[in-house]
Amino acid sequence: MATSLDLEGDVVDLLRRLVDVESVSGDEQQITDLVEQALRPYRHLQVSRQGNVLVARTELGRAERVVVAGHLDTVPIADNVPSRTTQEDGRTLVWGRGACDMKGGVAASLAAAAVLTAPRRDVTWIFYDNEEVEEQRNGLKRLAATHPQHLEAVFAVLCEPSNARIEGGCQGTMRVLVELTGVAAHSARSWKGHNAIHDAGAVLQALADHQPQQVVVDGLTYREGLNAVRVSGGIAGNVIPDRCEIEVNYRFAPDKSPEQAEAYVRSVLPGVPLRVTDVATGARPGLDQPAAAEFLAAVGGEPSAKFGWTDVARFSARGVPAVNFGPGDPSKAHADDEFCPGEEVVSCRDALVRWLS
Amino acid sequence: MATSLDLEGDVVDLLRRLVDVESVSGDEQQITDLVEQALRPYRHLQVSRQGNVLVARTELGRAERVVVAGHLDTVPIADNVPSRTTQEDGRTLVWGRGACDMKGGVAASLAAAAVLTAPRRDVTWIFYDNEEVEEQRNGLKRLAATHPQHLEAVFAVLCEPSNARIEGGCQGTMRVLVELTGVAAHSARSWKGHNAIHDAGAVLQALADHQPQQVVVDGLTYREGLNAVRVSGGIAGNVIPDRCEIEVNYRFAPDKSPEQAEAYVRSVLPGVPLRVTDVATGARPGLDQPAAAEFLAAVGGEPSAKFGWTDVARFSARGVPAVNFGPGDPSKAHADDEFCPGEEVVSCRDALVRWLS
Repeated sequence: MATSLDLEGDVVDLLRRLVDVESVSGDEQQITDLVEQALRPYRHLQVSRQGNVLVARTELGRAERVVVAGHLDTVPIADNVPSRTTQEDGRTLVWGRGACDMKGGVAASLAAAAVLTAPRRDVTWIFYDNEEVEEQRNGLKRLAATHPQHLEAVFAVLCEPSNARIEGGCQGTMRVLVELTGVAAHSARSWKGHNAIHDAGAVLQALADHQPQQVVVDGLTYREGLNAVRVSGGIAGNVIPDRCEIEVNYRFAPDKSPEQAEAYVRSVLPGVPLRVTDVATGARPGLDQPAAAEFLAAVGGEPSAKFGWTDVARFSARGVPAVNFGPGDPSKAHADDEFCPGEEVVSCRDALVRWLS
Repeated sequence: MATSLDLEGDVVDLLRRLVDVESVSGDEQQITDLVEQALRPYRHLQVSRQGNVLVARTELGRAERVVVAGHLDTVPIADNVPSRTTQEDGRTLVWGRGACDMKGGVAASLAAAAVLTAPRRDVTWIFYDNEEVEEQRNGLKRLAATHPQHLEAVFAVLCEPSNARIEGGCQGTMRVLVELTGVAAHSARSWKGHNAIHDAGAVLQALADHQPQQVVVDGLTYREGLNAVRVSGGIAGNVIPDRCEIEVNYRFAPDKSPEQAEAYVRSVLPGVPLRVTDVATGARPGLDQPAAAEFLAAVGGEPSAKFGWTDVARFSARGVPAVNFGPGDPSKAHADDEFCPGEEVVSCRDALVRWLS
């Protein structure tokens, strides 16, 4: 059994404690219990829980309310729990599953929630489950459906790793299935068939030759990607295959609707039989909104575009401008050598406190 | 329990009986028992059995010996046993698993073995198991290793389906694995990776563009084939894949050694990382040999090239010229609508009897 969490002690120690409590998606009971026990004693927070989604609200009657949210789950452990630390050029690095994605952000926001007893704006702190798995299980999605008032705000910060810098909006993501069909035949008489795998050659070559777009939206540059992420075909070693499937993932800038994104894929693969199997719209950065501008000023630095899809799109879809802001390099998310610099946890906590004090 | 086999009655009835006894590879005990019981009473045959391989030899002291061989197993049943017959343009068609590949040939040779009490050449009749599965289990391969004397002959006939015409030799078959490697990355930041599936585009396009050779060997034209028979790659829907495999099957004319076949594949796919995982050399038709010429004369018609690999290569490898000759259309082998024309069973039996009487 893990010991309780100290929200007002060393925030790097707090991150280590969070990493040491395994919380792979679907197994968030223990970490949610600990977070709940840690927040309940704070009289300035009104804590409620739905399953493994925890909401802590200040109710000071401020004119504005903001949301700060983060997920508690991680992808599966890869022999990287419990946590460990190393020193590098005077910096402390915390290693372990979830250190980067996104217990660093959770530690920063828990620490800020504890000390911000009288924030300038009311705050809704949200900690949720099942972000790393299929969308149907996502705790924030569930909360939006059952308790939409908890997502109401003038601005939202999602503590996904962003190197402690503001990353605006997020790209959309679309999954497309290319289904090629041929005619099966014995491979000793291949001319009697039509090889569906051979037809994949032109499709994959078109994807290989394609130069992804870079699109400027609200001042931020989004870099798209169009990639085959799976290919499969073949019946047996002596049969001309009559079927080949290619799954394509299109990451598209938030200026595009799903319809525009599909039209773009079709323009790259003209005449190819394909269908969209899944799509999630992106979120425009919305950094021109006043609430966002104020957050930018408090944090400092230059905002950049977020390439991956994140739950900021859930706020954006409700008209709430939202940004990603959290410690850790997003390219270390899900990596076996996942880590988070301790100083970025500190600076994120401090930025949140500075913004809301 | 199936009734006993009548080798001297209607040969089409005999074929139906053989089809009705299921004998999927590995399950040949019952059919071998029946064949053994049917052959044992014939005093002109010396019958021996090794597992489910049955050998029946005449020992008349003739100057020459020939082999007639056929396998007893079939590919899995596809709701096509027991057999049925239809009439079409006055022809009787026997439908069912193995009717074509190759119980038609087995029926013809069993019937010939029964009536050829004093053949002009000594005959070794071979019936064997496990032809339709991996080579290690092949009954003829096993017999060649444990009782090589049973394969000694001046000429061999393998009763594989060939539309009751002589098909000379067989093509070689080679399996090649193309292993493409890239660098994995999150698909939201695809430029940090290298997509191995995209690299498959050029390989598959080269195979699609390739025009297979037609090669004349000993007067017969062999039509080659070079085909991707399997492709697989992909890690997850949001990951740039770092690996893609393509399995290629090369069917090559019997003028090529395995080394020449590999060099040919490499010339079509220059610079592509590949390795040969399996190869079986073909068999030259050998129709210029005297014993073969005599068989051609007895059967009549024009010989043609055999495109598929067959066990004739096992004789050829021992210096025994061998041909394929059996009832049924080889393109119906393994098909769900497998059938064999009854009249071809009759004509094949008659040709064997005419040749050896």
